[in-house]
Amino acid sequence: VIEEKEFECGCKPSVIPFEKNDSWQILLVGKLNDPEVFPVFSQVIKQFKDKQCTFYVENHSLQKFKDQLIKDQLSEFVDALTEFNSQNHESIIDIIVTLGGDGTILYTMSHFQNRYSPPIIAIEKGTLGFMCMYNIQNIEKDIQKILQNVKVNRNLMVERKMRIHVKILDDKGNIAKQNGVEKSYHALNEIVIDRGPNASCLKMEIFLNNEPLTKTLGDGLIFSTPTGSTAYSLSAGGPIIQNEVRSISLVPICPFSLSFRPIVLPECSELKVKLTEDNRGQGKVSGDGQKIFDLLPGEIVHIESSDLDVYVVRETFKANNVHEWMVKLKKMLNWNSNFSK
Amino acid sequence: VIEEKEFECGCKPSVIPFEKNDSWQILLVGKLNDPEVFPVFSQVIKQFKDKQCTFYVENHSLQKFKDQLIKDQLSEFVDALTEFNSQNHESIIDIIVTLGGDGTILYTMSHFQNRYSPPIIAIEKGTLGFMCMYNIQNIEKDIQKILQNVKVNRNLMVERKMRIHVKILDDKGNIAKQNGVEKSYHALNEIVIDRGPNASCLKMEIFLNNEPLTKTLGDGLIFSTPTGSTAYSLSAGGPIIQNEVRSISLVPICPFSLSFRPIVLPECSELKVKLTEDNRGQGKVSGDGQKIFDLLPGEIVHIESSDLDVYVVRETFKANNVHEWMVKLKKMLNWNSNFSK
Amino acid sequence: VIEEKEFECGCKPSVIPFEKNDSWQILLVGKLNDPEVFPVFSQVIKQFKDKQCTFYVENHSLQKFKDQLIKDQLSEFVDALTEFNSQNHESIIDIIVTLGGDGTILYTMSHFQNRYSPPIIAIEKGTLGFMCMYNIQNIEKDIQKILQNVKVNRNLMVERKMRIHVKILDDKGNIAKQNGVEKSYHALNEIVIDRGPNASCLKMEIFLNNEPLTKTLGDGLIFSTPTGSTAYSLSAGGPIIQNEVRSISLVPICPFSLSFRPIVLPECSELKVKLTEDNRGQGKVSGDGQKIFDLLPGEIVHIESSDLDVYVVRETFKANNVHEWMVKLKKMLNWNSNFSK
Amino acid sequence: VIEEKEFECGCKPSVIPFEKNDSWQILLVGKLNDPEVFPVFSQVIKQFKDKQCTFYVENHSLQKFKDQLIKDQLSEFVDALTEFNSQNHESIIDIIVTLGGDGTILYTMSHFQNRYSPPIIAIEKGTLGFMCMYNIQNIEKDIQKILQNVKVNRNLMVERKMRIHVKILDDKGNIAKQNGVEKSYHALNEIVIDRGPNASCLKMEIFLNNEPLTKTLGDGLIFSTPTGSTAYSLSAGGPIIQNEVRSISLVPICPFSLSFRPIVLPECSELKVKLTEDNRGQGKVSGDGQKIFDLLPGEIVHIESSDLDVYVVRETFKANNVHEWMVKLKKMLNWNSNFSK
Repeated sequence: VIEEKEFECGCKPSVIPFEKNDSWQILLVGKLNDPEVFPVFSQVIKQFKDKQCTFYVENHSLQKFKDQLIKDQLSEFVDALTEFNSQNHESIIDIIVTLGGDGTILYTMSHFQNRYSPPIIAIEKGTLGFMCMYNIQNIEKDIQKILQNVKVNRNLMVERKMRIHVKILDDKGNIAKQNGVEKSYHALNEIVIDRGPNASCLKMEIFLNNEPLTKTLGDGLIFSTPTGSTAYSLSAGGPIIQNEVRSISLVPICPFSLSFRPIVLPECSELKVKLTEDNRGQGKVSGDGQKIFDLLPGEIVHIESSDLDVYVVRETFKANNVHEWMVKLKKMLNWNSNFSK
Repeated sequence: VIEEKEFECGCKPSVIPFEKNDSWQILLVGKLNDPEVFPVFSQVIKQFKDKQCTFYVENHSLQKFKDQLIKDQLSEFVDALTEFNSQNHESIIDIIVTLGGDGTILYTMSHFQNRYSPPIIAIEKGTLGFMCMYNIQNIEKDIQKILQNVKVNRNLMVERKMRIHVKILDDKGNIAKQNGVEKSYHALNEIVIDRGPNASCLKMEIFLNNEPLTKTLGDGLIFSTPTGSTAYSLSAGGPIIQNEVRSISLVPICPFSLSFRPIVLPECSELKVKLTEDNRGQGKVSGDGQKIFDLLPGEIVHIESSDLDVYVVRETFKANNVHEWMVKLKKMLNWNSNFSK
Repeated sequence: VIEEKEFECGCKPSVIPFEKNDSWQILLVGKLNDPEVFPVFSQVIKQFKDKQCTFYVENHSLQKFKDQLIKDQLSEFVDALTEFNSQNHESIIDIIVTLGGDGTILYTMSHFQNRYSPPIIAIEKGTLGFMCMYNIQNIEKDIQKILQNVKVNRNLMVERKMRIHVKILDDKGNIAKQNGVEKSYHALNEIVIDRGPNASCLKMEIFLNNEPLTKTLGDGLIFSTPTGSTAYSLSAGGPIIQNEVRSISLVPICPFSLSFRPIVLPECSELKVKLTEDNRGQGKVSGDGQKIFDLLPGEIVHIESSDLDVYVVRETFKANNVHEWMVKLKKMLNWNSNFSK
Repeated sequence: VIEEKEFECGCKPSVIPFEKNDSWQILLVGKLNDPEVFPVFSQVIKQFKDKQCTFYVENHSLQKFKDQLIKDQLSEFVDALTEFNSQNHESIIDIIVTLGGDGTILYTMSHFQNRYSPPIIAIEKGTLGFMCMYNIQNIEKDIQKILQNVKVNRNLMVERKMRIHVKILDDKGNIAKQNGVEKSYHALNEIVIDRGPNASCLKMEIFLNNEPLTKTLGDGLIFSTPTGSTAYSLSAGGPIIQNEVRSISLVPICPFSLSFRPIVLPECSELKVKLTEDNRGQGKVSGDGQKIFDLLPGEIVHIESSDLDVYVVRETFKANNVHEWMVKLKKMLNWNSNFSK
């Protein structure tokens, strides 16, 4: 159940109840190749010392985590470390802490394909991230604040982000399989249909709410969430869409048309795409650049908004819903950097 | 009170209760310079014969209306014709019938600045219109259907369209006046700030929810509704936004920046714009190209979504919410007309 | 030697001397899968009956050509048909006749990599082509006119089109080889560097005249001739450039930048591109979509205008240099198809 | 007569002979409202002490110039100062020195409407300028170098920039007049046709080389030189064109079309524009934002490249023709400032 609370600006940010007292299940995800990740996580773990938590980490980094805890004289937490296995643990995680940029969050969400996300404490490290609400500089204090708020209000203030769901249907309308696995994905940024290694352009037909919308020839199509509007969609000419404008943007990649401008569709839209009969070769479907399916002739790409939202924890005391977004727009994109004049 | 009813596509179109039995107050607006307007309106009037309606028409066309009714042997309606006066009649109109294109609807809405619009039966004539749901070809039958539905269901199915509200504030925060009239307008398409006859570009600062968003130098700014996204905003490079995606698009006109891409903001956004201190000359503010205010140094342009929506009557039996929109997108804009290949 | 002659418009179209009397070497190229190609070529061949020509055709179509000639009672030409082999015949061809669209011409030019092209009589068939100056409707008469002009003026009026030359250099500055063949190509439309089947974006550095121009991250880069400006470059947002404006357009494909607008460089520019050291994976280089090289880390893509122009025969009596171009712009691209208003 | 000399890059920069020994006629133009202009010009004047020059300055700044010279103990130059009068002096000026940005050069060129420009030593001050090749920091040394080169080589190395010529023709084909003055202008950046204070969009028909190119509806049209391609044309979506690519870009301003992309035409093109018969109101024609003509129904705007080029002095020792251009592209436009990634 999600409650709403009013900001000064009139916006209603999302607040999710969080009533657990202890024995929290916490997933920690960081950039693998960055040795500085471990000391920061060590500090993060320490903040939860009165909660009897279990900390889930990815297999390959388990030993490094342990070493770091011992080094930091936090060996009492070593036994609380467990290898994360999405099949077993997806449903029980209470909180996620990520350390990196947006890519780390996208990757983490690939493990949460059957439920809305647990609240994510997203810490920026190295690269800037639109979704990262915390910085390693103040992370100890910030986590204290979050925990204090949970204690007092039994809830977490979050930014609720829509995902977009793609599934590939075969000619009987069933979800197609690749290597025995269903071709289905809930993406946080975007679904892309492109030609992959294919030399020829793709010829596709697009249906909106079961009616033919248009045929197109080009390098591909992007179906983006507002979160994805500052990623690949933007580089293909799509508009920048604020998170609260829940919608699906359809943005063509290098279309053979002078007039195929991006269109922004309501969240409730149902989109279908198929290769036309005179298309040569096959296509490729990807979600957040993570999962990749082949798109075969006869198959239908079915796209709609996902029921499984993502919740990113944000500071409770900020009055203005779009403040961070504005700051990042200018800082990360150099949006509207004027000519020298 | 607006009820919602579910479409096949999952969308919820708007349905407004309409419980009047008779003595309807009907406003008729058409293109003045088109003599063919009068015979069509004559047919429209006839459909309401059992309602004891008053028909309001604009002053300059009153006599032509009367002549037409007599010519069509409908002289019993002549006394039902009254000169429309927005000051007296804005609040009492029950239904509007427009004959023309989108421009006719925009013009009509300039008379409804203090209330949401009465339901509009928008008939396409001459030019195509995104908002026109009816065609003169079948208008008699279509109005019969609408009236039948009112009788049975006591309601009207409408497309609900947001407006955008601009007011100019003086340095004390009061609404500024021009010739004694408050500088305030509810626009259906867009608010435009531009340099008017001024030779120099405008230098402006934009605030979002009371925080500085950006400074800009250029020909002007467009703040568009979804309805306006296929009008001037589009010609300045803005995205096409479907009506259900309630939002405000900020689109610059010829900005002196390579990176000032359009952004789409939530409906609840509050925007303020002012000329910077080093701006030369003054600006111009217009709404739907109808009302024009001067923008003086020190004044603040305040923009937010309007409370006064516009309701356009649509066919009750169409299953798909975006069907007409798709059709018009392709027909009116040549959207995605592919290269010959 | 190329002479110039003045058009009414002031432009100087190209005229190439053509002084051969007979024993012409003619290359015929058509779309393979189109059975209607053969009857048209049969008519073309007949026009050259007093020239003692040899007709070169591609291996796979040789027999079909012969069958057609016999069917058309032109069996005296059967012995004049020879299988084309670019290695042996590239240097001796006097005239080319193509039947198809622009794709057929691009394909044909892949066989003329060591010389400027022989004059091409480009006949449009099936698809529209920017470069096709003749139509199958009047082809017999048109060829008569061309031959008559050759007889009288000893020259051919042509549209001279620049090509663009790519070569891949290894770390010693030598042309790299792939399967023993030098990585070098003269393209008529464009050179494209993209990521091919690679999942990651390409990080590249671009040098102009041996100085660093910019670093870029994205799907790839297009280096286009004016001829290519209405092909792939256009779908990536590049400008439309008239043939006489000899230049190289640099157009990024989905760049991770809001401000990487296309730039148009002088014909004499020398461009170099290399993958940056932190780029993941390898790239792909293609010319007119025909030849494809792998781009390996450490290699340098060297791009400059080619010395080997392409000459497309055009009507001698047209007064205006850009007339056909204008017509095709509107017909093929739907360029500036206005909104319905 | 202009000679050509080869750069390392293969480009041929322009070199103009300059064989005068003394009694030079020098025009000095600076930003009026900037008091720091005078000390710099004082230093400039001193460098010419052995030439017996006459220095022309604008009327309003004559006294300030004199005061500065006296203050700088250069009173021997006071008598060499003369008020500039374009009617009398346009033809006799040998060299121009400008101090400011590109705007100062554009303004200065408005006085040279009947001849190609004298060589301009363009000094950057305050704002960055694409055309400014010198900076106040080293201006004394730089002028010494220029003078030394003149002495030795009897020439000046310049960047040759094309201008674009507009004239308004009446219905008899004569140049129309406004207040007795011919409507004609040679612009260095661009010619703009827009609606000025008019509320309605302009409907125009465009002819290329006397054939109809297209009809258009919108805010206006820009006809830009390569020099102007980084100015207003760029803010309307036009491509960036390097100076050596002599051409005319046609760029629409907010056109009512999804497909009116910019086109780049050869230098020899002749363009004509007229208001269509159903256009409402009148238009406005401007050149470099300086001269403004009304455009009346029936008049024809005639546009072609000008014979009167502009010569900007550049350093003789720079090997690479486009070096400065590249530097300014990145510095002034933030061209291709990548996303943070």
